[in-house]
Amino acid sequence: MATHLTQARAGIVTPEMRDVAADEGLAPELVRERVAAGTVVIPKNVHHDIRARGVGLGLRTKTNANIGASGFHQLLDEEIRKLEAAIHHGADAVMDLSTGDEIDRVREELLRRSPLPLGTVPLYQVAAEASIRSMDVETLFQCIEKQARQGVDFMTVHCGVTRDTVAKLRAHGRLAGIVSRGGALLAAWIEATGRENPLYEHFDRLCDIFHEHDVTFSLGDGLRPGATGDATDRGQVAELLVLGELAERARARGCQVMIEGPGHVPLDQIAANVQLEKRLCGDAPFYVLGPLTIDFAPGYDHITAAIGGAVAAAAGADFLCYVTPAEHLRLPTVADVIEGVVATRIAACSGDLVKGTGGARERNAAMSRARKALDWETQYLLALDPDRARNYKEGSEAKGSKVCTMCGSLCSMNIDSATTARGGAFVPAVASTAGAARPERAPDGCPLPAAR
Amino acid sequence: MATHLTQARAGIVTPEMRDVAADEGLAPELVRERVAAGTVVIPKNVHHDIRARGVGLGLRTKTNANIGASGFHQLLDEEIRKLEAAIHHGADAVMDLSTGDEIDRVREELLRRSPLPLGTVPLYQVAAEASIRSMDVETLFQCIEKQARQGVDFMTVHCGVTRDTVAKLRAHGRLAGIVSRGGALLAAWIEATGRENPLYEHFDRLCDIFHEHDVTFSLGDGLRPGATGDATDRGQVAELLVLGELAERARARGCQVMIEGPGHVPLDQIAANVQLEKRLCGDAPFYVLGPLTIDFAPGYDHITAAIGGAVAAAAGADFLCYVTPAEHLRLPTVADVIEGVVATRIAACSGDLVKGTGGARERNAAMSRARKALDWETQYLLALDPDRARNYKEGSEAKGSKVCTMCGSLCSMNIDSATTARGGAFVPAVASTAGAARPERAPDGCPLPAAR
Repeated sequence: MATHLTQARAGIVTPEMRDVAADEGLAPELVRERVAAGTVVIPKNVHHDIRARGVGLGLRTKTNANIGASGFHQLLDEEIRKLEAAIHHGADAVMDLSTGDEIDRVREELLRRSPLPLGTVPLYQVAAEASIRSMDVETLFQCIEKQARQGVDFMTVHCGVTRDTVAKLRAHGRLAGIVSRGGALLAAWIEATGRENPLYEHFDRLCDIFHEHDVTFSLGDGLRPGATGDATDRGQVAELLVLGELAERARARGCQVMIEGPGHVPLDQIAANVQLEKRLCGDAPFYVLGPLTIDFAPGYDHITAAIGGAVAAAAGADFLCYVTPAEHLRLPTVADVIEGVVATRIAACSGDLVKGTGGARERNAAMSRARKALDWETQYLLALDPDRARNYKEGSEAKGSKVCTMCGSLCSMNIDSATTARGGAFVPAVASTAGAARPERAPDGCPLPAAR
Repeated sequence: MATHLTQARAGIVTPEMRDVAADEGLAPELVRERVAAGTVVIPKNVHHDIRARGVGLGLRTKTNANIGASGFHQLLDEEIRKLEAAIHHGADAVMDLSTGDEIDRVREELLRRSPLPLGTVPLYQVAAEASIRSMDVETLFQCIEKQARQGVDFMTVHCGVTRDTVAKLRAHGRLAGIVSRGGALLAAWIEATGRENPLYEHFDRLCDIFHEHDVTFSLGDGLRPGATGDATDRGQVAELLVLGELAERARARGCQVMIEGPGHVPLDQIAANVQLEKRLCGDAPFYVLGPLTIDFAPGYDHITAAIGGAVAAAAGADFLCYVTPAEHLRLPTVADVIEGVVATRIAACSGDLVKGTGGARERNAAMSRARKALDWETQYLLALDPDRARNYKEGSEAKGSKVCTMCGSLCSMNIDSATTARGGAFVPAVASTAGAARPERAPDGCPLPAAR
């Protein structure tokens, strides 16, 4: 089978590359060049019938929502509602991290219903179905292959958690140890058996499976920092070096590759982390979790992650995994999923405004003109969450009013418009869309949520 | 009367300087030096009996919550509950921005109840009580003097909105015009009367009042950008130049000065805005509103503001005015106040971790150790919002469990602790405080919320 990478190298512009180009306002040939170079990936399994989305250099910053049941809480209906909420609020991808009993069935159902690329961490299924200590290499690869055949678009594989990198991490010491589930499981296996991580040792076999189904590698950072005090430490950087080497090997075998990044990182180390990944991994797309800029805001970690994610995106990160208010405390609810998706999209759009991607500048300008004109319908239309914006305004005492309850008659927009209309030099040109048909996409190309 | 600035210049360490030094872990003499230099202010009116808090260089980044009724919505009880919520959740100051009917009474009540410095924008009262077009200079100064005598600790005065700076703004054009209420009101007055802004023209008279009661200037940015597309434009920078000159004049007359900043600013312009303020205004403390990093997230602007505020604080901003989810849509409710205060504290703490102020590093480390040890009580204690953290965890199916519903038996902390305990090189030292008396302050010196 050919992957998008091998086709791009052969000079072929696939239909998926055309879709990505159309959605991003780029020339198809530019997308092809970047897929060939590995700076853009199109996570789309040959068995998954979805519209392709690209991740990488010069594209709109993408967002991912993690869903999935756990042993404590497994209700398929609820996971489906989380998927729908993520889609409705504009996530670009979802990962099914289920670890409960009926993992295959949940995945099958989510894959069938998801118009978005879907990712997994196959090791979770292996660990959920048997003790990790007794993990058998054959079982692990069979699980990966099964998921690839099912149509999973990208998989997190923690290939850089090796005897050497784990030893480096332990020698240096850490506040919070290994906080990635995959990382902790593999380190436990390595330290219990004395053997090498099979995902590292048999990396070529992994490449063969990923190549056959065009599964995109998401090379996991199993040794990522889970405390700001552990950020950018020897364990993390040692693993990143390995991931860079593996990215090169995977590409040489025709596979598409993203690299996963932290985690918990102080604000002033975020740009350095992005630069390090880009330099060490051949400019592979960077997929970050947060990063969280402080450790002590449980219940609000969608906000600590939005801060770090925005700064990472502005510095060049390509793909932001959401964090919800439930992080560190419980499995997210549907409401948590919504908070997480919107917060992460805010981060992505804040980065896009700096990178010049995704039409963020145009959407901001259109929103600012609508605000100045006190054109509320256009403001709701352009808002990341139109329903919430409308409910806040129209649920207040100023329902239907030109102004809101914050300033009332002292509304600056109102005062200043009256002033400029009376003879000021500048009267903003406002293209009102009130009453017009609801467009499917915002000026930045983001799909707008369907009207409810 | 002597102000903290004149006393500091005379070599006197006031009791308030000692309190600030104690709270920040600094030497009193260093605080005195910085107050004398104008890089630290202590907003405390001689008539307001509160424990002093400092704002400025080398101090913990402070946060402010705006409360106050409007014409649409005026319930004194609700404003008092907002004040209590802001105090409980750790705000460092409040501003009463009331514009309803009984403005004096609301302010009197809030001043009496507030242990925090309280600020106002006197122009709001003038505009609420009479048409701004007919504003009489004498009425304006009488209102300012009345509020100073009442005990207001800092006042926003938009002295930089002048005939010249407004003309510069109009000539250049803007997406969203003038979005500051004070700025829009004064520009309207200037353009209607052809006269100069009295707060600029009679600046020395203003200094005399502020000096007498030791009211701290918060030189307002009436021309701040209210759209990312308007950021750092000629109108904004022209006003900042004026504010820098006025800051120098105010200090020469013995007054303490902060400078207010934007507003809506793309991520990559925030550090430049902080540097510009510091250079042009003699390193006066910088008090920013947000900044919001995109314009189209109404309903979630506590998050857009937290992103910008964190980056601003890391770059040297000293004081963050909160933004609530209600911004641009309605007067905030008590729930909005809580979201706004916590989001802004996250931003401040993210900046403190970079600046090395406020003990953020120590609090992060303590939290990370507690997390690693699965010591939930210590995690709740150290959380910015202990109640919410506890409710998320203990309201889930994992109530009372060592692990949470996110990962269940696959908890990385649990797996990795077992691994390291079995012979790993690093076992973190955990100082458990479970069962210990609840401390009044977190390791970073922040007052901890009272146990409910």
